[in-house]
Amino acid sequence: MTSVPDLSDLISLSLLPPCIWREAAERLRSGASPAIVLTELLDRRAGGPAERAALDRRARTAARRAIDGGITPLPWSDPSYPAALAAITDPPFVLWTRGAPAALERPAVALVGSRAASPHGLAVAERLGADLAARGVVVVSGLARGVDSAAHRGALAGGGSTVAVLGSGADVIYPPEHARLAREIEATGLVMSELTPGTPPLPLFFPLRNRIISGLSRAVVVIEAGEKSGSLITARLALDQGREVLAVPGNVLSGRNRGAHGLLRDGAKIVEDADDILEELGLPISGAVPLDIDEKRDTAPFTHDSVLACLTPGEPADLDAIAERSGVAPARLLPRLFELELKGLVARAGGGRFVRI
Amino acid sequence: MTSVPDLSDLISLSLLPPCIWREAAERLRSGASPAIVLTELLDRRAGGPAERAALDRRARTAARRAIDGGITPLPWSDPSYPAALAAITDPPFVLWTRGAPAALERPAVALVGSRAASPHGLAVAERLGADLAARGVVVVSGLARGVDSAAHRGALAGGGSTVAVLGSGADVIYPPEHARLAREIEATGLVMSELTPGTPPLPLFFPLRNRIISGLSRAVVVIEAGEKSGSLITARLALDQGREVLAVPGNVLSGRNRGAHGLLRDGAKIVEDADDILEELGLPISGAVPLDIDEKRDTAPFTHDSVLACLTPGEPADLDAIAERSGVAPARLLPRLFELELKGLVARAGGGRFVRI
Repeated sequence: MTSVPDLSDLISLSLLPPCIWREAAERLRSGASPAIVLTELLDRRAGGPAERAALDRRARTAARRAIDGGITPLPWSDPSYPAALAAITDPPFVLWTRGAPAALERPAVALVGSRAASPHGLAVAERLGADLAARGVVVVSGLARGVDSAAHRGALAGGGSTVAVLGSGADVIYPPEHARLAREIEATGLVMSELTPGTPPLPLFFPLRNRIISGLSRAVVVIEAGEKSGSLITARLALDQGREVLAVPGNVLSGRNRGAHGLLRDGAKIVEDADDILEELGLPISGAVPLDIDEKRDTAPFTHDSVLACLTPGEPADLDAIAERSGVAPARLLPRLFELELKGLVARAGGGRFVRI
Repeated sequence: MTSVPDLSDLISLSLLPPCIWREAAERLRSGASPAIVLTELLDRRAGGPAERAALDRRARTAARRAIDGGITPLPWSDPSYPAALAAITDPPFVLWTRGAPAALERPAVALVGSRAASPHGLAVAERLGADLAARGVVVVSGLARGVDSAAHRGALAGGGSTVAVLGSGADVIYPPEHARLAREIEATGLVMSELTPGTPPLPLFFPLRNRIISGLSRAVVVIEAGEKSGSLITARLALDQGREVLAVPGNVLSGRNRGAHGLLRDGAKIVEDADDILEELGLPISGAVPLDIDEKRDTAPFTHDSVLACLTPGEPADLDAIAERSGVAPARLLPRLFELELKGLVARAGGGRFVRI
């Protein structure tokens, strides 16, 4: 569990500009405490003790506001922080969550797409959401108008749980007409944000938010995306994170699907129904999907980790070699190695190699 | 040019059951005259001179009916018989054509799909037909309801020419409401059939007809096809013939596109507009497409043929080796070799190898 000072320092880190998040994450992964990382970064910014004190105050205010709003902060260092998200290069330092945390224990798939979707796009999002949820897969999306909200609604209709990741504080529901949907989501799933409670929905937050949507998920399914859709950002982030990208085809005359069809040209798997997604992820296409396998593995003793077991302490190995020895697919390997790095069990050895400590 | 007895014998061969067409084609390719092939086949059928005389009568009747109906028979042995079609394993012995034969000199693309197409499918067929025709590509289809007729109409609207291949005699327009469309097609393109004039549109003729649609074309584009669509037969024939297969995506909820999406899963290129087709075929995507390159090459002295040039007489070579030496893509190579075989310049040497004679 995270100590209170750690939580406060992690919140403070999250209040620093996004451009230094990745560096902060690397320092934390290398074993430095949040307090030390914060000190190092602030020293460089010449803000000094005054900036530190201001950040502390804002962090305490955020924590207090969270308590008042029924929001639970889930710091990166917490064992129940989602392992898939912890494995990306720039995980949120703190997730502010409202709802049922058990939703994070199941395999998740992101359904993303156009805010101005066609009736076909909305119907597909809703059906995929329902069918995935009915199989026990958590549906992740962004609570936006159009495809996002249709996917959430579908998941609820399918009797499953869904996670909405916001580009504003977890208590600032945007668009406002989705307030009731957000409440319904919280009953069995989660509304979450990396932004402190009360943060307004500013445009700059949405691309950042997208990395969380893909980071929580094993796959991102793009349902309707034009050529410059934000969903394509999510798809690119998903590929960077080693996740699967799939796309639903559609009308070729409206221009609404140029982005999704572009993904298909680039090799994304075509999705007509939920089975296509489950099959691609190697999940059972009939019956309920088991609890997230990676998540369960994460709670096992580290010495029994299949990736760790194939590394000899002090002998660096590259990804291909580790993939071959462990039998873990390269796309899944990098996140696993990041997890192990975060636990201080492996370190980077240069040239893309990893070494067991 | 074909002598009159040859034409009559080729017509007679076409009146034999389809199950022996391939064998007859192989004998003709090996250099046997139509009269000899006909005699050989009839000897085996124990029909004897009576059957031969009956076939002759029917052939003469067909030729006479063709003259009355403004239909021109184009036998396989004629230099203006389309080279691409001549290269398939079971080319029609005679094409009965009505219209402008110059349409056979341009590169052709088949647009095929559902008879009960959605408004989206019809609009796509019409747009692709118009855009291909405007670039000088001949649009080939089957004059059926739905996608076929939309493709023909689009080609005419685009100011180009189009070829309709029928599953009945060239003078038996089916469905009857397309009689006027057929007349419009003939003004700049062709209505054609391998069936003798007056043949009614029987179900068994349509799958056979499909091999002509793909055989005339460099590529087959499937626009809307359910899981058991006849267009999938055409697509499979196209692959067998070494032609490209492309597919237009669409609605995933209606079931109308399960066949087309299946082709995309299997590696067919995705088509959103005519440029996608031209690009796949290596044709210029701006400006008019030149006369068919294969056609022009066919009239060049055979000794300058790039495929022939890389074969040493008497030394069999397999497809991979020929492709490597000639620089001709394997998919294009087989039709070329069939052409050369038809000209008596190469022969099959067993084990899928070819030898220059």
